[in-house]
Amino acid sequence: MTKNYARKNIQAIAGYTPGEQLTGRRIIKLNTNENPYPPSPKVGEALRGFSWESLRLYPEPTALPLREAAADLFGIPKEYIICGNGSDDLLTIALRTFVNDGDAFAFPEPSYSLYPVLADLQSAVRRPFELTDDFGLPADIIRQAGDAKLLILARPNAPTGNSYPMDAIRALCRDFDGVVWIDEAYADFADDNCLALVQEFPNVVVSRTFSKSYSLAGLRMGIAFAAPALVNEMNKLKDSYNTDRLAQALAVAALQDPAHPEANVAKVRASRADVTAKLSAHGCTVLPSQANFLLFRPALRPAREIFQALRERGILVRYFSLPRVDQYIRLTVGTDEEMAEFLLALFELDR
Amino acid sequence: MTKNYARKNIQAIAGYTPGEQLTGRRIIKLNTNENPYPPSPKVGEALRGFSWESLRLYPEPTALPLREAAADLFGIPKEYIICGNGSDDLLTIALRTFVNDGDAFAFPEPSYSLYPVLADLQSAVRRPFELTDDFGLPADIIRQAGDAKLLILARPNAPTGNSYPMDAIRALCRDFDGVVWIDEAYADFADDNCLALVQEFPNVVVSRTFSKSYSLAGLRMGIAFAAPALVNEMNKLKDSYNTDRLAQALAVAALQDPAHPEANVAKVRASRADVTAKLSAHGCTVLPSQANFLLFRPALRPAREIFQALRERGILVRYFSLPRVDQYIRLTVGTDEEMAEFLLALFELDR
Repeated sequence: MTKNYARKNIQAIAGYTPGEQLTGRRIIKLNTNENPYPPSPKVGEALRGFSWESLRLYPEPTALPLREAAADLFGIPKEYIICGNGSDDLLTIALRTFVNDGDAFAFPEPSYSLYPVLADLQSAVRRPFELTDDFGLPADIIRQAGDAKLLILARPNAPTGNSYPMDAIRALCRDFDGVVWIDEAYADFADDNCLALVQEFPNVVVSRTFSKSYSLAGLRMGIAFAAPALVNEMNKLKDSYNTDRLAQALAVAALQDPAHPEANVAKVRASRADVTAKLSAHGCTVLPSQANFLLFRPALRPAREIFQALRERGILVRYFSLPRVDQYIRLTVGTDEEMAEFLLALFELDR
Repeated sequence: MTKNYARKNIQAIAGYTPGEQLTGRRIIKLNTNENPYPPSPKVGEALRGFSWESLRLYPEPTALPLREAAADLFGIPKEYIICGNGSDDLLTIALRTFVNDGDAFAFPEPSYSLYPVLADLQSAVRRPFELTDDFGLPADIIRQAGDAKLLILARPNAPTGNSYPMDAIRALCRDFDGVVWIDEAYADFADDNCLALVQEFPNVVVSRTFSKSYSLAGLRMGIAFAAPALVNEMNKLKDSYNTDRLAQALAVAALQDPAHPEANVAKVRASRADVTAKLSAHGCTVLPSQANFLLFRPALRPAREIFQALRERGILVRYFSLPRVDQYIRLTVGTDEEMAEFLLALFELDR
């Protein structure tokens, strides 16, 4: 028997399973919450105008031009900003900066399935807190989180799609002893966001991604906002050159055309309302969504069966074999054509 | 006084300091071991031909097309390969996969100044082993490394530039109980490399980077080779999408034109020999280099003083205020023009 050189807790875990990235035959891909519309043409121009010879040089370590562009757009000083190789990079940095081996890391359940994996990778104690019946924040969240050093929540939440009341978030930030990380990957599709809280509280981080509203999942760029004292500690943890030259340049171009993602967000929100209405009319239970996806329970057939049957027709959606959501399907909001084809297939299958 | 939310050992450390990336006025940049020549024109073609619209989709999580291209080029199965966001990403993955809180991590001194920082970030015990008078491996390396779970060495070493005998490396791999990580960032500039060892030993990892011989420091792409059992454990630690679509595509293009980096390596090696001879003739002590940089001791003036004076003239080299190398300057091998200008300035100052 060959020796396993990995740490015991690494051997024991299965790791995070990303959504399928099928290639080959024509598929309708509604399983990883990508934006159905392309990024801004300004991104294409920046790509074509990029000096490939300059790739011989290292990138600016802190993505300064991007932080400056973000500071301008969001009205928050650049000292409050740290960039990452996707927001997953920032979440890993968060665990490594704030959570010691054996410290507790608090997160809601059900939520983004990466959170418990991050806890295991850091040898942290998982401290899940159960969302209410309608997937809201529990009233005793502070008590449940206890002495956790870091509490994360996604707002809007994934995979449920709902948001949480702003006053509950503000109270949490005020009363919780550790760091509150608000994962706003989907906030651009919501009615409001928490960005202002980072200048109000010394213990609050808000993270954003270019993967969703900016249609740049393939670029890997995330950005987090927090008080400079928090940013300075996180900077020690990040790889020196964690964001590359091309990604920095293309992300700057994307920020310089905010009207483009705004228009796409408006289209996605309209489609979200339309599909919600049609699924509800069919008899599905659809959770109210503030994100670019919907979580719904089929009217008549089990969710797992529908998931498989859709897959056989080349329509990929997401199914989670997890407590409380295993009766649901998560559907990324796609183009009108994709939604029409999906609904046609679903209504045939779910009867 | 504001509360510091970071882990105690993160608060305590200064972090790794990357080499300066000055912008603005004309400078001769010989401080971060970048390649003075641009990447393959195939990289430029791949960039111009890249579908920017496809950036809306997530990348292939394991960089499969790149692993296949590397498997072809290096003759090692793709199951032996893991890609990272620069080899720094891979080094972080190594620490997190193999070294528990409180476990020892062994590395040579003097060597890459990131290694002790990585130990601190992982709450590992630093277990440095002193290189011999001529910066060779100590005979009792196994004894010094003791029960370390991971031993890393750069071959060629940085910042000294020398390599180590292959038979000593093979004995180390055979006799050491933990994982041996051979950081081959500079191996393409050397007379030999250790790649074959990963199919010979179950505990050996060899890492490479696109930052040096491939002239793609700005792209952030690293690649490591190891037995599939090691790769599988490391895959659990990496971010799901740790390498982006553009970087994958451009790295594939770079691998498809191996003659380009080979020609650049030949030029750098020729310049290395030429500059070594000229520095030696001036009276400098130059260490024998197998890398794309030289470590040398000025003939007459203190290294720190020369470093500062060069900097004032817009010539950036690297100075390390560290034991045993603080009398030396590290010089990246640049173009012939850059080397001529550097030598002219040095000979004026070092007298």
